[in-house]
Amino acid sequence: MVMTYWQPNYARRAGRMKASEIRELLKLLDRPGIISFAGGIPDPKLFPEAEAAQAYVEALSGSNGATSALQYSVSEGYAPLRRWIANHMATRGVHAEADNIVITSGSQQALDFLGKLLLTPGDTALLTTPTYLGALQAFSAYEPNYDTISSGPTNRSAVTYAEAAAHAATGARVAFAYVVPDFANPTGETLSEDERSGLLDLAYDLDVPLLEDSAYSALRFEGNDQPTLQALDCRRSGSLDQSRVIYLGTFSKTVAPGLRIGWICASRAIVNHLVLLKQASDLNASGVNQIVMHRLVDGGRYEARVATARGHYRQKRDAMLRALSTYMPSAVSWTVPQGGFFVWLKVPEAVSSAELLKRAIDEANVAFVPGQAFHHDGAGSNTLRLSYSLPAESDIDIGIKRLAGLLSA
Amino acid sequence: MVMTYWQPNYARRAGRMKASEIRELLKLLDRPGIISFAGGIPDPKLFPEAEAAQAYVEALSGSNGATSALQYSVSEGYAPLRRWIANHMATRGVHAEADNIVITSGSQQALDFLGKLLLTPGDTALLTTPTYLGALQAFSAYEPNYDTISSGPTNRSAVTYAEAAAHAATGARVAFAYVVPDFANPTGETLSEDERSGLLDLAYDLDVPLLEDSAYSALRFEGNDQPTLQALDCRRSGSLDQSRVIYLGTFSKTVAPGLRIGWICASRAIVNHLVLLKQASDLNASGVNQIVMHRLVDGGRYEARVATARGHYRQKRDAMLRALSTYMPSAVSWTVPQGGFFVWLKVPEAVSSAELLKRAIDEANVAFVPGQAFHHDGAGSNTLRLSYSLPAESDIDIGIKRLAGLLSA
Repeated sequence: MVMTYWQPNYARRAGRMKASEIRELLKLLDRPGIISFAGGIPDPKLFPEAEAAQAYVEALSGSNGATSALQYSVSEGYAPLRRWIANHMATRGVHAEADNIVITSGSQQALDFLGKLLLTPGDTALLTTPTYLGALQAFSAYEPNYDTISSGPTNRSAVTYAEAAAHAATGARVAFAYVVPDFANPTGETLSEDERSGLLDLAYDLDVPLLEDSAYSALRFEGNDQPTLQALDCRRSGSLDQSRVIYLGTFSKTVAPGLRIGWICASRAIVNHLVLLKQASDLNASGVNQIVMHRLVDGGRYEARVATARGHYRQKRDAMLRALSTYMPSAVSWTVPQGGFFVWLKVPEAVSSAELLKRAIDEANVAFVPGQAFHHDGAGSNTLRLSYSLPAESDIDIGIKRLAGLLSA
Repeated sequence: MVMTYWQPNYARRAGRMKASEIRELLKLLDRPGIISFAGGIPDPKLFPEAEAAQAYVEALSGSNGATSALQYSVSEGYAPLRRWIANHMATRGVHAEADNIVITSGSQQALDFLGKLLLTPGDTALLTTPTYLGALQAFSAYEPNYDTISSGPTNRSAVTYAEAAAHAATGARVAFAYVVPDFANPTGETLSEDERSGLLDLAYDLDVPLLEDSAYSALRFEGNDQPTLQALDCRRSGSLDQSRVIYLGTFSKTVAPGLRIGWICASRAIVNHLVLLKQASDLNASGVNQIVMHRLVDGGRYEARVATARGHYRQKRDAMLRALSTYMPSAVSWTVPQGGFFVWLKVPEAVSSAELLKRAIDEANVAFVPGQAFHHDGAGSNTLRLSYSLPAESDIDIGIKRLAGLLSA
């Protein structure tokens, strides 16, 4: 007898929320001996265990400490941390006040909130293709259509995007454009200033917000910082409160993801709406974690961590690029990132990277993310994402050699 | 010249997400000398500062500790905490496995997820009236209609609910029923076993899930525990995996809200969907906080905390009931809760509790939540919620005396 379990009628959106490959792959992190180039996982060797322990002890001592650390707190976030982030945004060319900042549970929650705030079912979200898988997951819960922006000379005009999005019966329209301009997830590529200006032009022509996912931007190994989209728009519009760029920041890649602290920097009007979403969604980010994060970044500590992380991940990137050059057959090509965690590979058209992953796990004890997962349109079957952030340099060499062996056979 | 700031077109749902009175009232907690009967705020005197500090130090030491505590983790939650909760559910009459549990950022996120999973715009959510304000905020983001369930003899039949919800053009229907069966927020009232069985009957007749918000159920001062709706349905349906009751638990009222740890216990099929929502919404709850919460509740520590909290809040409830009896004019009536944080007051029809709040703050330095905030239909203008959880007993006496003075004048 087959047991049939009762199930409710799920909301229409549940049909868009499927199990992800990244999720299944994260489970492989525990598999003995596996060399994982999969998740965008920071190296725990950089985690500030001792400083965090000390910061928790301090946050939980004193008469006022525990009261605020373990109590409910305001939805917009811990005021000293918001002020620190506002000051930090000046280093990204943005003159922000604490009121321009809302604390989120990592960048993933920021993506969820922006989908929730901006997408009515049937609206169109403009994305690069490929783009961050987690953004597709967050946005898809709000039932958008997707259309592809390119920053190159083949870019379409605003009119063609608006026409494609328009649906007279429902009033659907382009709701926003989303980009990862620096060391992109998944390609590792960085937009030039001209490309950034072109994206801003498009956002103005369409009269929509431009979402700037800045998760990796602090981790530049070489070359000069590009201006943030938000800084460019503050210049163009006159001020942050006039800007249409919504900036998503996180401490997950530079300090540690386990505290779940990220932020959104935007005009006060938009932040006020986001604070209401935060309240309805989970009231507030963990108070004690916000206090601890503030202690971990204040007084030059953030800058010191970033400097260390840059050197650390640069060596790993170099190890990966060296191994790719040494072992990969000539039919395989890849990007050369100037920062961040990712290299993007193209393998011959005939190779399915999803099939390759199965062989890689079974025959080589190596993992990566197949490129199709980053394409809203199902393309990219001969692409894959490699992250060099987690494995040791020696394992990067071994893992790439094994992967190249599968591609050379 | 009036400055006009650029604003995006917000999603349709944004019109349903307004600033809440609770939010504004939480700001009053910092006002010097105010006696607040407003938020459902636990008394920080009960917070385990020292034990938490020790638990953070332990979680962050050792070779494996920091790696898992500060790293990304699985979306369903920290396995030892899920197992602890599964065992805990046995004390609530529910035989659960770890796979029946998903960790959320407090109960508020559980409410958000259940709205997200179950509500298509136009669907009807059945609620008691009044009900928890935060549930209305969470659900409203998913654009439902609301209809009122009563557990008394005037209860309507399933057919009348289904007919009211049906909207042929969109396929709208009753999506779920939501109740706080023990020491309800906001009324402090507890459902009898007969009333619980009646609610289950209704959920079966409508073939919908029944959401059991159990935020306060551990804090019983006197009388016997009522069976949980989930336990009743496990008996009726045969097992938790066959059950249509979705149980929402939290450590916010019994341990501390600042770690933001709650849970949902439900059938595996429903939990699997919720894990996908967790991943899309914020990836995972803070790893370090989950490890620390496990240490704060394991080995009998939860039961010891609950025993202390019961005695503590019972004294405060007694102080409030004593003060109400002593000072309130005869035209004012109130509920007598057997547990939890709240007493619900009815004042004469001619009195607006929203107007009373303004006077209470200005003239008496006392705060509470006007009852209208808990009514989806705008009713309840002559009701108000008093929480006795936060103020000292002496302040409860003073605050109720002052409030009674305003009502007697």
